Amino acid sequence: MPYVNIKITEEGPATAEQKARLIEGVTRLLQDVLGKNPQTTVVVIDEVPTDNWGIGGESITQRRLRSAPPRST
Amino acid sequence: MPYVNIKITEEGPATAEQKARLIEGVTRLLQDVLGKNPQTTVVVIDEVPTDNWGIGGESITQRRLRSAPPRST
Amino acid sequence: MPYVNIKITEEGPATAEQKARLIEGVTRLLQDVLGKNPQTTVVVIDEVPTDNWGIGGESITQRRLRSAPPRST
Amino acid sequence: MPYVNIKITEEGPATAEQKARLIEGVTRLLQDVLGKNPQTTVVVIDEVPTDNWGIGGESITQRRLRSAPPRST
Amino acid sequence: MPYVNIKITEEGPATAEQKARLIEGVTRLLQDVLGKNPQTTVVVIDEVPTDNWGIGGESITQRRLRSAPPRST
Amino acid sequence: MPYVNIKITEEGPATAEQKARLIEGVTRLLQDVLGKNPQTTVVVIDEVPTDNWGIGGESITQRRLRSAPPRST
Repeated sequence: MPYVNIKITEEGPATAEQKARLIEGVTRLLQDVLGKNPQTTVVVIDEVPTDNWGIGGESITQRRLRSAPPRST
Repeated sequence: MPYVNIKITEEGPATAEQKARLIEGVTRLLQDVLGKNPQTTVVVIDEVPTDNWGIGGESITQRRLRSAPPRST
Repeated sequence: MPYVNIKITEEGPATAEQKARLIEGVTRLLQDVLGKNPQTTVVVIDEVPTDNWGIGGESITQRRLRSAPPRST
Repeated sequence: MPYVNIKITEEGPATAEQKARLIEGVTRLLQDVLGKNPQTTVVVIDEVPTDNWGIGGESITQRRLRSAPPRST
Repeated sequence: MPYVNIKITEEGPATAEQKARLIEGVTRLLQDVLGKNPQTTVVVIDEVPTDNWGIGGESITQRRLRSAPPRST
Repeated sequence: MPYVNIKITEEGPATAEQKARLIEGVTRLLQDVLGKNPQTTVVVIDEVPTDNWGIGGESITQRRLRSAPPRST
């Protein structure tokens, strides 16, 4: 019965199909590595605005403005 | 001074009155069971889109499509 | 299928019986207020050292040292 | 490589410039106090509706209605 | 620069090698599905005592006592 | 009434005095930038074993073994 929280920036954005693949993939990973029951594995995905995500002391919004062309990170 | 985070799917959705009852109820529970001071108990409720919540290796959106009629889970 | 995370200081500490009452109580609360299925409600309790919990700009350890006798908060 | 999550109510609301200052400030704090590398410090800010934040057993929405004039807390 | 938090019960327990496989696997998944840069993907694993994890209104400790032999879930 | 969660590796480890400085500093930052009331600002620090923290697809334990001398990150 693992619980997994995945936080990503809302850039893109991720499609429903991509999010379904994340849910399926991480559930299978926990079954393969630790034998966890997939039926009780919970996955929650949070999509965060780029103003609200910081790395290296600046927001992703600021970082994107400095770099051209934009890159997926 | 407990901190409680409640994550639910945004189906329904929950009304302001229901969320107030969750806040009041969990605060009282911590006072009754552990003697915690309700004045400093913090509760944060997150409402998550059904595409972003997975159980059993699939999203709630996918699960709802397979089952008719929709059920509260 | 709600997910609830309860963070408390590890003072006391909470007994297994008290933690079981928290799990049972918050699961029932989500059923009563929102009709959530208790079979898929997940609750995780984190017990945090008092050095690692801050309120009002100081740790609980510091706060306890200033106040006599100690009080449950 | 610390990870910091800051949750605030979405009142105001916080501007992109204020959020950038939070990211910069907490990243520098971790460098100053613990010598952490700012390049790998991650900060995520969550802005929570006042209906979804509780303190003292009631939501911030309820608390704001009882107090006049509104105060920043 | 995704952030992933994996919570599991501390049963077993998971070995360092198993935790390394979780970290590698979820990082690769985020690269494969969303093109995320693995160099800035952060994964944090929390191992939770069975008294502190609830499902179906009871702790894993209680659930394990009711079922014989113990199963991985 | 912000809530801040700081996750760091348990390397070092951080002293009680350093953790008190983190609590004081982040509480003051939220007051300076957003005018938040320090009396109701909650800070929780989690110290995570290096086997349980991943970056770049490997655990900190693995990363430390590859690099000599060890560096604070």
